[in-house]
Amino acid sequence: MSRVRVHNFSVSLDGYGTGEGQSMEAPFGHAGERLHSWFFETRTFHQMQGRPGGGTGADDALASAWGPGIGAEIMGRNKFGPQRGPWQDEEWKGWWGPDPVFRTPVFVLTHHPRPSVEMAGGTTFHFVDATPQEVLRMAREAAGDRDVRIGGGPSTIRQFLAADLIDHLHVVLVPIVLGRGERLWDGLEELEARFPSVESVTTPSGVTHLTFARP
Amino acid sequence: MSRVRVHNFSVSLDGYGTGEGQSMEAPFGHAGERLHSWFFETRTFHQMQGRPGGGTGADDALASAWGPGIGAEIMGRNKFGPQRGPWQDEEWKGWWGPDPVFRTPVFVLTHHPRPSVEMAGGTTFHFVDATPQEVLRMAREAAGDRDVRIGGGPSTIRQFLAADLIDHLHVVLVPIVLGRGERLWDGLEELEARFPSVESVTTPSGVTHLTFARP
Repeated sequence: MSRVRVHNFSVSLDGYGTGEGQSMEAPFGHAGERLHSWFFETRTFHQMQGRPGGGTGADDALASAWGPGIGAEIMGRNKFGPQRGPWQDEEWKGWWGPDPVFRTPVFVLTHHPRPSVEMAGGTTFHFVDATPQEVLRMAREAAGDRDVRIGGGPSTIRQFLAADLIDHLHVVLVPIVLGRGERLWDGLEELEARFPSVESVTTPSGVTHLTFARP
Repeated sequence: MSRVRVHNFSVSLDGYGTGEGQSMEAPFGHAGERLHSWFFETRTFHQMQGRPGGGTGADDALASAWGPGIGAEIMGRNKFGPQRGPWQDEEWKGWWGPDPVFRTPVFVLTHHPRPSVEMAGGTTFHFVDATPQEVLRMAREAAGDRDVRIGGGPSTIRQFLAADLIDHLHVVLVPIVLGRGERLWDGLEELEARFPSVESVTTPSGVTHLTFARP
């Protein structure tokens, strides 16, 4: 069976995966770029933006694993954009421009479904009101024999972890105290016991990559 | 001026420095030994117990820094023991036996002062009802030109951090999700901004040592 993977998900020391006050100008709220500056320096991120350069060290080696073998992504609506409640603006097609980095079907969890949006480069956004199990079934069907990535934000990953649906969890611990926002770890007592492999490694950027995995 | 230091303070991924339900049998509550197993393997801990052996790798190198240059410790009452409220048992002299590892004056913060207790080996427990600033003044006077260690638990360290009294903070991140207990990081937004030096290093035991320091 295909695996369910999380990659490059940054959290603060106090466990926040995003800050407070998301808006068009601040996708991560008051966290700004502090949770992701390690990622912005990587070649993987530069390539996502069609730019040359970027670091090719350990951060990049770990970051680059996000793409290979993935056939679909599931994301929460708050990752897709800052709108809440019924869609006021269906012209909004995500933060990622006309040619999004995903290049697979992307299932956006929302209580307000809308028609699918086909983008350039292979990305199609589907908007579904479903449980983690239901949307995972759809994503697996779309992914064929490839894996499914759970893209975030924190509450989406937390729901999938709570339902024990994740096989590979790559979390990046950033040594900052955010103070407020949305927490990843709540309600997940003894999460580590479900994963036979737990690895930690600090890279020169100062972040610590944690990988929880099962076969 | 002497420095104020924290050493070997373990926290879980969700930021708990101790578990729920402390008792005589369970000094760290439901956390058991999970937060400290990395430490129990070190030669530093073996020596504290008068036992031979113990690891001499990076965990031990970092752990061993707790003692040198320290002239006094400040601890919270919950580190001293499981009793709450007025003392029912003044015979209780801490978890550390007749010859405690501290070998300096130790100031125990409590709303219920009691007479000082002089132990073998240089440790004297003083029981004081004081603010962080007040007890630090006492501890500095007792320490002479040596440093003062803040020994924990989480709420004591958090109070000293909130008052910006700590110069060296060594926290050990253990890759477990405790789920409940007492949190370290609450109310400390942007703590990292106060420390010009923030270092992280993962050791082969799988824990990550974080050091926040200022001159």
